[in-house]
Amino acid sequence: MTDLASDALDRLIADLGDIPVVTEEKVVRRRSRDFFWYSPILNAQLDGKSADLIVLPRDEQDVIRIASVCARHRMPITVRGGGTGNYGQAVPLEGGVLLDISGLESIEWIRPGAMRVGAGAKMHTIDAAAQAQGWELRMHPSTKRMATIGGFVAGGSGGIGSITYGGLREPGNILAARVVTVEEEPRIIELRGDAAQKVNRAYGTTGIITALEMPLAPAWKWIDVVVAFDDFMEAATFGYEAALADGIVKKVLSPITWPLPSYFGSLKPSCPEGKSVLMAMIAEPSLDSFKSLLGGRGTITLETPTDESPGRVPLYEYCWNHTTLQVLKSDRSVTYLQCLYPHDRVLEKVAEMRQLFPDEVLQHLEFIRFGGRVTCSSLPVIRYTNADRLNEIMRLHEERGVFIANPHVFTVEDGSRYKRADADQLGFKHEADPHGLLNPGKMRSFVSRR
Amino acid sequence: MTDLASDALDRLIADLGDIPVVTEEKVVRRRSRDFFWYSPILNAQLDGKSADLIVLPRDEQDVIRIASVCARHRMPITVRGGGTGNYGQAVPLEGGVLLDISGLESIEWIRPGAMRVGAGAKMHTIDAAAQAQGWELRMHPSTKRMATIGGFVAGGSGGIGSITYGGLREPGNILAARVVTVEEEPRIIELRGDAAQKVNRAYGTTGIITALEMPLAPAWKWIDVVVAFDDFMEAATFGYEAALADGIVKKVLSPITWPLPSYFGSLKPSCPEGKSVLMAMIAEPSLDSFKSLLGGRGTITLETPTDESPGRVPLYEYCWNHTTLQVLKSDRSVTYLQCLYPHDRVLEKVAEMRQLFPDEVLQHLEFIRFGGRVTCSSLPVIRYTNADRLNEIMRLHEERGVFIANPHVFTVEDGSRYKRADADQLGFKHEADPHGLLNPGKMRSFVSRR
Repeated sequence: MTDLASDALDRLIADLGDIPVVTEEKVVRRRSRDFFWYSPILNAQLDGKSADLIVLPRDEQDVIRIASVCARHRMPITVRGGGTGNYGQAVPLEGGVLLDISGLESIEWIRPGAMRVGAGAKMHTIDAAAQAQGWELRMHPSTKRMATIGGFVAGGSGGIGSITYGGLREPGNILAARVVTVEEEPRIIELRGDAAQKVNRAYGTTGIITALEMPLAPAWKWIDVVVAFDDFMEAATFGYEAALADGIVKKVLSPITWPLPSYFGSLKPSCPEGKSVLMAMIAEPSLDSFKSLLGGRGTITLETPTDESPGRVPLYEYCWNHTTLQVLKSDRSVTYLQCLYPHDRVLEKVAEMRQLFPDEVLQHLEFIRFGGRVTCSSLPVIRYTNADRLNEIMRLHEERGVFIANPHVFTVEDGSRYKRADADQLGFKHEADPHGLLNPGKMRSFVSRR
Repeated sequence: MTDLASDALDRLIADLGDIPVVTEEKVVRRRSRDFFWYSPILNAQLDGKSADLIVLPRDEQDVIRIASVCARHRMPITVRGGGTGNYGQAVPLEGGVLLDISGLESIEWIRPGAMRVGAGAKMHTIDAAAQAQGWELRMHPSTKRMATIGGFVAGGSGGIGSITYGGLREPGNILAARVVTVEEEPRIIELRGDAAQKVNRAYGTTGIITALEMPLAPAWKWIDVVVAFDDFMEAATFGYEAALADGIVKKVLSPITWPLPSYFGSLKPSCPEGKSVLMAMIAEPSLDSFKSLLGGRGTITLETPTDESPGRVPLYEYCWNHTTLQVLKSDRSVTYLQCLYPHDRVLEKVAEMRQLFPDEVLQHLEFIRFGGRVTCSSLPVIRYTNADRLNEIMRLHEERGVFIANPHVFTVEDGSRYKRADADQLGFKHEADPHGLLNPGKMRSFVSRR
């Protein structure tokens, strides 16, 4: 128990009626964490933060009741999906209720090009359901097998698939979100089209998402491919060409510098000593075109259908922030950054950063579309010394035109490129959470008017 | 009969055995034409050019026999598909055989993401066959209902669908081409991957294409949409935003300046007086996102599923070079250009050209992907005065960084941006057509070594 007197908690629980709760401290503390420990800075700041209890709604009616009870009790609510975030999105700063939405897992419908699901549905589950009907999610994080769709929308930005569809912020990548407001008399608000952006990457501060309508892509048979190159810049150059090749259907293109592949567990047989690699997911009918474009430039060391069955490790679990995780498994001294390269100078800037930090910043790019342009984000693994040096590395990137989305801060504002909350999100928070009870401290520009 | 002595022709026909031929002069002359008359310059140069006879192969064996016979007789062969080209691609400059490939219409197979068909297959037919299995052609010209796939590959460059997949030149957009060489002992060559580019936009000069393997896109239910704007630049600006929106699935985005829509026949009820329009094909599940992006900026005047059934005019028959055709139907004094805008200054350059030629060049853009970047090609309708002024208009575009693919010339070289034949194509022609019999005069840099 962190902040609350025991009797206040008892009164809250009583008002929740038959809604399941968990109060066992060890469990509550463990589930109050996410993967913020990738950052030594967040680890120092967030370690030990915990909710007072976990509440487990079984359906939207439960969510409404919880929202009402918490509004009356002025009790903080931090919503948690799979807990796979890296910025402490799901870590309660001020105790209170950890709202575990994993019970909201229904698939309401799947139609051509779209599906509507509960916010707590596992991405792996809904993707499999869509695939059974010839569709698939447009994009997912590397944590797809653990993450919920609500957590992805509230905490994420894009991932595997963003090379084709861009990020969640692009028009059309979230069709609708249904939210419950945190008020004495909660309201249900259906945010459609552009309005759905009010919950995107807001860390659950702008209403409790109960359902999401997501666009679907036609399902492809994906092939995991690894190509080994003598030199990282060759991998990056070919990756960029493949990223620009609109006739080649792909889902991921990740150039990764040696020695990062030396940490890649079961993938090591496909990662020759000393070689940088490009990891790719290519639609089977495009595989020959991909090889034709490659020509004689690299060596294909893996070519196998994507296999997500239990016990297998699909290639995407070495991409995006799983790259960092693979290294952290055996070397806890590293951390990472999130960079966005300018689309009109991609390779030039990658080479420049490489020269600037030859050993300290181990490059790992993710080609994406961003605002309709092909560019790359980058999640380099950093050999960490101290916070000052980390901040200096970020400053040196930004001074040279490489944008940073700082993953070593826990507020919506500080983690964004522009260091501010989206005006629509901030405005909407007054409507959806007038008392400022949702994930307090995460949207720091919000000041309740009540 | 244009060039050949009657007895030479008789000997040729005798050697062709039972392969059907047409010698009736009126028919031969009519089928020796294409839509070059959009250009007053080509019209003067090509009018009256004709083959001596039409030969109609029923299968590839017939093609091999024709190639062998023509090689022995040193008889020119000009291959013709639907005859929908605009540069005289299918017009024989030196008489001889017009090889009508429409008999090569078989669908060899349709697999997930790809199909293999005879070169003479109608695009409309194969697209319908693919759609029946959940797939569709990635791109097609506005003449889809008349054009053959072989003619599109040999003469075209891209079209409806290029906003997503780029043009035929992008890696992966032609999977393979099978060609018959024109030699005494013809060979069959299968060009796969990058090698297939040897027949792309070569006007049939680099071998007789008998079959093509084309990539397929997942089929969407398309919605034809017209949005009316007070000002053309508003239509162009919104079109560009939609083109950059990777979350919105689309097949065409064509801003068209007033007064061009006043010529649009059955579409006129959707084209308000004085308004410029954006014509779009949007996948049904993306329609709401498209409208959300539009906001209050224009007025949607048409929204209806694409209907290609007989007697209907799908929206794409007002796009690409059909825009020009719609005007030519009632005003034969106009012609057109083919421009490619620089991807990093699209709207700026469109505005500049508009200012330079306010009334003489009536703008009509087609957003496309080109080399992985969103830009627009443009097929403006030109109020034609004379050849000198037309050339000056082209020069003024090029001086200002707007590339021109001149549609008023009939050689492969002159019609290209770089005014030269692709080195691979030129080299391959020596192999596939050593005597220079295929569409002679169209690849003017070719000089036979025999």
